[in-house]
Amino acid sequence: MPTDQPTVTFLSDYGLHDEFVGVCHAVIARIAPQARIIDLTHGIPSYDVRLGAITLQRALPYAPPGVHLAVVDPEVGGRRRPIALRVAEDDRMLVGPDNGLLWLAAQRFGGIVEAADLSRSAYRLEPVSATFHGRDIFAPIAARLATGLDLHDVGEPLDPDDVTIQAMPLAEVEADEVVAHAIAFDRFGNVMLDLEHEELTMGVGLKLGEPVEINGERGVYASTFADVDPGTLIVYEDANRAMAVAVNRASARERLGLAVDGPVRIRRP
Amino acid sequence: MPTDQPTVTFLSDYGLHDEFVGVCHAVIARIAPQARIIDLTHGIPSYDVRLGAITLQRALPYAPPGVHLAVVDPEVGGRRRPIALRVAEDDRMLVGPDNGLLWLAAQRFGGIVEAADLSRSAYRLEPVSATFHGRDIFAPIAARLATGLDLHDVGEPLDPDDVTIQAMPLAEVEADEVVAHAIAFDRFGNVMLDLEHEELTMGVGLKLGEPVEINGERGVYASTFADVDPGTLIVYEDANRAMAVAVNRASARERLGLAVDGPVRIRRP
Amino acid sequence: MPTDQPTVTFLSDYGLHDEFVGVCHAVIARIAPQARIIDLTHGIPSYDVRLGAITLQRALPYAPPGVHLAVVDPEVGGRRRPIALRVAEDDRMLVGPDNGLLWLAAQRFGGIVEAADLSRSAYRLEPVSATFHGRDIFAPIAARLATGLDLHDVGEPLDPDDVTIQAMPLAEVEADEVVAHAIAFDRFGNVMLDLEHEELTMGVGLKLGEPVEINGERGVYASTFADVDPGTLIVYEDANRAMAVAVNRASARERLGLAVDGPVRIRRP
Repeated sequence: MPTDQPTVTFLSDYGLHDEFVGVCHAVIARIAPQARIIDLTHGIPSYDVRLGAITLQRALPYAPPGVHLAVVDPEVGGRRRPIALRVAEDDRMLVGPDNGLLWLAAQRFGGIVEAADLSRSAYRLEPVSATFHGRDIFAPIAARLATGLDLHDVGEPLDPDDVTIQAMPLAEVEADEVVAHAIAFDRFGNVMLDLEHEELTMGVGLKLGEPVEINGERGVYASTFADVDPGTLIVYEDANRAMAVAVNRASARERLGLAVDGPVRIRRP
Repeated sequence: MPTDQPTVTFLSDYGLHDEFVGVCHAVIARIAPQARIIDLTHGIPSYDVRLGAITLQRALPYAPPGVHLAVVDPEVGGRRRPIALRVAEDDRMLVGPDNGLLWLAAQRFGGIVEAADLSRSAYRLEPVSATFHGRDIFAPIAARLATGLDLHDVGEPLDPDDVTIQAMPLAEVEADEVVAHAIAFDRFGNVMLDLEHEELTMGVGLKLGEPVEINGERGVYASTFADVDPGTLIVYEDANRAMAVAVNRASARERLGLAVDGPVRIRRP
Repeated sequence: MPTDQPTVTFLSDYGLHDEFVGVCHAVIARIAPQARIIDLTHGIPSYDVRLGAITLQRALPYAPPGVHLAVVDPEVGGRRRPIALRVAEDDRMLVGPDNGLLWLAAQRFGGIVEAADLSRSAYRLEPVSATFHGRDIFAPIAARLATGLDLHDVGEPLDPDDVTIQAMPLAEVEADEVVAHAIAFDRFGNVMLDLEHEELTMGVGLKLGEPVEINGERGVYASTFADVDPGTLIVYEDANRAMAVAVNRASARERLGLAVDGPVRIRRP
């Protein structure tokens, strides 16, 4: 792995219609011309911190170690702190708003070992705007870290225990039922659960192709949409090894009337 | 051309709303940090293998030689093989599903000279998911090829004659009529034909600005939309030197009621 | 700043559904493999030269010096010239159609010091298509400039005074009223004004949070949308330090019935 080309990954809810993402790329390229920028996605639904946090946690293990920039920031201009974190594994650094967005990814890499508050960082682009902290705070400081600066160079020390957590529910696996939760929804209305594959197959003892009851509705434990008819409710293992609930060609979120963290009871019929 | 920065081009139907494209970039960057990735497009309509194949064939001649990754894969998780191909010209390599997606581009570069079946490649990311072979098979193997591995390193030999072809119709140029076919549609309903510019001008003897009859409907042989009123049916040479049929500000596909490979008869009125 | 990795920024109205942007990247990578390409945005609304010009002017100061490619080109194939410009500051070069798109950015960097007409450039990709000059003229010539060629190498000398300007209105600041203009609209219907922050606060003497009358309608001078209820009309300083008018969760353009360059009168109620 060449150390002369640091990696900056970038995830946001900016979308690609406007120049926001491009301007952040420009800012990084000016400060750290040798850095390689990998856009993980900019399609997180606006202000969906939870889905941003989960997506970051799932995507980063595939990315090279480096600086991981993430911006989903409903309180921009408010009182939430801009922060940078160093995690236990791979010397990875995370940069973004202190609203829980970075939390799950930090846990995935062994937890936070060092944190910095960027509120008064000398490396912000002055004058800092009220609404575009991606350009004025997060991108320039991510770029500085990519050039080799340390957390203590770019901000003031922050107790890792003071970093805002992303509280997540915990599935309960009982003898004849699993009580999971809807931790996030994608744009198709598919429902991500806080449930591992083994918890379903070993806990409830389900096998692929068997019928299942999900919040009282009849469904199937399937491996892909291709296995079932349109309109069928399924529970399946998604591409990230977590269990999810979907309706072929329709929205499981609507069918089951689910809100974030709402319970999803799965049992044999 | 510097050989120390190999190129990986990437085309898919993943879209940019989700993190799929970003995660494939991350996988490639981990394995082949020196590679440059060029996104040709990720806007191929879902599962439209034909349009993916045509787009790849048309775009690749503009791209530097290297590894060409393409994923439009309606049968992911089914029985279609993952494959890698080497073509006659420029030492270019193609990686993707064996469903015809790579075929037209391979023909464009002189045909397949070597093929590999990646089904049991040691370079897949284990455990391979049921649905995200871009991340788990195609991207990592494209990256390995970009680092200098050969086809026989990453898969088992496959007879080039066993690679799935993309069957295409063939326009018939007669004395007073051309019978072309609708080989693909873009998202505006414009219709791509299996017809070269010369076949129309020399075959039927049409000149720019002249009226023309297309499947019985009155139209014009124009050079751009700007030349005609809204609602006018035109036949024109597209940016890739192929003939196409369109309606200014409407869908020619709907107007003519065309399906893929449907006949498009062009004659003087 | 390493001179061995030149930067090419790229802004267009091509969108990302098709392969247009990807093919331009491919063309640049073939000619200038060492260049880094930064996509500023490809989401400029089709043919909106004015918004393209403003976006380019606002984004480029954040970008490294280099070659700045921009394509919003309603008259492609018509009589408008393809041009390249060198500006006074940073040795920056601009490449695009001569329709005013490059004008504001050129002014931002001290004005045009050298211009070239690319109509007969030897570095166009032959045969040049009627509709895709991004691929056939602008991208290949931007790439040549990135490899170190000069303007006089890639085109014929053009008098800078003959370059098409982007005419802009000029706000009038009077004792009790500001007459600004709607210089552009974003996709939410927010209205950009030709008005600086100081002109509003010093001219009319407004303070944050105070009521304001905008074209006869009651509004508020606010710092962000978060400060007001849905449906409220606000005037605010946008992320680029210019004043703008918006309606929280609705279109100010529609509410005020504004067209490009339409007057926006702002006064104390």
